[in-house]
Amino acid sequence: MIPTRLQTQIEFIAELDKLKGVLRKTSPIGLKRRENSAEHSWQVILSALLLAEHSNAKIDLLKVVKMLAIHDVVEIDVGDTFHYAKEKSENLYERELEAAQKIFGTLPSDQSEDFLALWKEFEARETSEARFAAAVDRLMAFILNSRNEGGTWVEFSLTPQEVLEKNSHVAQGSEELWNFIQEVVTDARRKGELRES
Amino acid sequence: MIPTRLQTQIEFIAELDKLKGVLRKTSPIGLKRRENSAEHSWQVILSALLLAEHSNAKIDLLKVVKMLAIHDVVEIDVGDTFHYAKEKSENLYERELEAAQKIFGTLPSDQSEDFLALWKEFEARETSEARFAAAVDRLMAFILNSRNEGGTWVEFSLTPQEVLEKNSHVAQGSEELWNFIQEVVTDARRKGELRES
Repeated sequence: MIPTRLQTQIEFIAELDKLKGVLRKTSPIGLKRRENSAEHSWQVILSALLLAEHSNAKIDLLKVVKMLAIHDVVEIDVGDTFHYAKEKSENLYERELEAAQKIFGTLPSDQSEDFLALWKEFEARETSEARFAAAVDRLMAFILNSRNEGGTWVEFSLTPQEVLEKNSHVAQGSEELWNFIQEVVTDARRKGELRES
Repeated sequence: MIPTRLQTQIEFIAELDKLKGVLRKTSPIGLKRRENSAEHSWQVILSALLLAEHSNAKIDLLKVVKMLAIHDVVEIDVGDTFHYAKEKSENLYERELEAAQKIFGTLPSDQSEDFLALWKEFEARETSEARFAAAVDRLMAFILNSRNEGGTWVEFSLTPQEVLEKNSHVAQGSEELWNFIQEVVTDARRKGELRES
């Protein structure tokens, strides 16, 4: 029996349930466990809804939400890559693209094309929506680490330079969020949560 | 020092991080742990984005997403109430409303009013957006339990009648999702995952 359009969509939702089992390096505030990419995805969507006014450019907020809802699904195949990993797989983008094609390829073709295009747009970070979505995505670790006694900053012995360099693209999406991040870094440095290089 | 508008919004995001620690009765597919309300919130948003075409009525999808992003935040204060709980606190709505007023009350006043209104609209289930959001919210347990050997249906010894009665409002949001749920119930009954009354 050929599955209906709805059955195909439900299968996709069930497949993406695996995102609840993909662990990130950061922890929820005050909890000892790692957070997973599904709860992180909710948090970035919530944050985009609340902080949209701080985008540098006018944005289509529904498009930002769609990008953020699926921005991490390739991790189901490829795993989470730590933002500060010293050795990144050289062909990471290619592997992630392959995973995206495979995962979104199970959807009805119109939705498959839409979501693959949204995923690529997020990765390319060239549109206002992608830049703002990326800014909000990067903001999360600053909110969590600053309330977790340094969190991954301390655990991985990061320096203020590393943290600022790796996230400077936040300014492309939101000058205000970038200013906020810089204040958080100054504060973390003062508390000794970021290692002086 | 009076916090800036952005600082107030960030505090709210940090407070809502607690949703990652609120456990529901359902489990992610194939995992032994309970799922939390944050990852559930991501899943209902993703599902609403994918299934919007099945809404009975034309909907403002961004409004649906906003409702779903905050639909469970009162659980931070009140806890998750199992959909099939035999004894529900009589004043549950009042306690949840109080929690909503307290939680959203920390936002800048325009956003506080917007989100409280969205939360009330979701609860009242009178608009097309609220009805569709509620339909998608209820759909999740059917997707998860049917892939978890009955999940909470088996654990709490539920009957087909209970499951259908408690979710019949799904039809108000989407006839198609309601038909799908009925098929899932027929199948679960055949497998003995729902107790014959």
